Amino acid sequence: MPRRPAYDRDVLIDRARDIFWQQGWAGTSLKDLEAVLNMKPGSFYAAFGSKDALFELALEKYAADGANRLLQLAEEQGAFETLKQYPRLVIENGAAAAKACMLAKTVLELRAREHALAERANALLLEAEARFADLFRAAQASGDIQAGHDPKALARRYQSDLIGLRISAERDGVDAPAIAGEIAQSLDRL
Amino acid sequence: MPRRPAYDRDVLIDRARDIFWQQGWAGTSLKDLEAVLNMKPGSFYAAFGSKDALFELALEKYAADGANRLLQLAEEQGAFETLKQYPRLVIENGAAAAKACMLAKTVLELRAREHALAERANALLLEAEARFADLFRAAQASGDIQAGHDPKALARRYQSDLIGLRISAERDGVDAPAIAGEIAQSLDRL
Repeated sequence: MPRRPAYDRDVLIDRARDIFWQQGWAGTSLKDLEAVLNMKPGSFYAAFGSKDALFELALEKYAADGANRLLQLAEEQGAFETLKQYPRLVIENGAAAAKACMLAKTVLELRAREHALAERANALLLEAEARFADLFRAAQASGDIQAGHDPKALARRYQSDLIGLRISAERDGVDAPAIAGEIAQSLDRL
Repeated sequence: MPRRPAYDRDVLIDRARDIFWQQGWAGTSLKDLEAVLNMKPGSFYAAFGSKDALFELALEKYAADGANRLLQLAEEQGAFETLKQYPRLVIENGAAAAKACMLAKTVLELRAREHALAERANALLLEAEARFADLFRAAQASGDIQAGHDPKALARRYQSDLIGLRISAERDGVDAPAIAGEIAQSLDRL
């Protein structure tokens, strides 16, 4: 049988990402993966090696897609507007399999097991924090945020609040868009 | 065999809470529970009925203990000081099995499955939000927070930020006490 083309592989990784994102690592069985990918065990192992290897590919795709969306928005809207709009955009993304951050969910689920995927997810979160710090720096350079603030501290708090917001957005009875609006407003006071 | 005394049962529920809190619902097997409770399958079923029934008891114990700590602090320190100190206390609680909120973890893990425990955890979070709103109302009554703010909106944002903080506290490379300090500072500006 010929190898599947790369395009196909990306589609499969997206599908795996969505089920891992929704159901977590322990909550996604090999049978679930074989069903959602429409693959037999032999083809699955030939294509991806293991559930953990596929989970890591899914995490990396998730993080890269998020980074691309953020940087594209920054190019179109500028750093300050991006930081203000991003909380709302991230909980209103209709294409997302879940509201909560997949990287945060993975750290939460797997850190107690000292699983390597928790470390990988945390490293990707640190990269995201560094991108937020770059945007805060750019917003200071453009005069939208006062120069006295430490951009790393702003990014740390912003990412923590975003993680909370995205979990709030998965909850029934919580007005998450209002929280997103308050996060945006708090940037106006910086 | 005589029934175990109630004290013993509370200790068992605490042990189950800790392993569920750390490893989650799917990540905790019946074998794990039997090992940590030192019970055989027959005794386990006689005492608790099922893994789900024990998980619900553990959630309720977790929520009741948290509520008691908060209300005791409020009695000692007053509402405003409690709201300012609580973020730091909650991530520095040495007796806690994990830093992240067990209720938030449960919603995250089980909502996609439409599992009844996710609904139960969300209801307990809504009760916690109402307690925070009461404290914000009391802090307004004592003049520590301006009367113009909606205490429900303040509580909603506060709880969301706390959920983010507590996940940040489980991450390597993140200065969570600094985030807790910034949450407390932001209350001074209200």
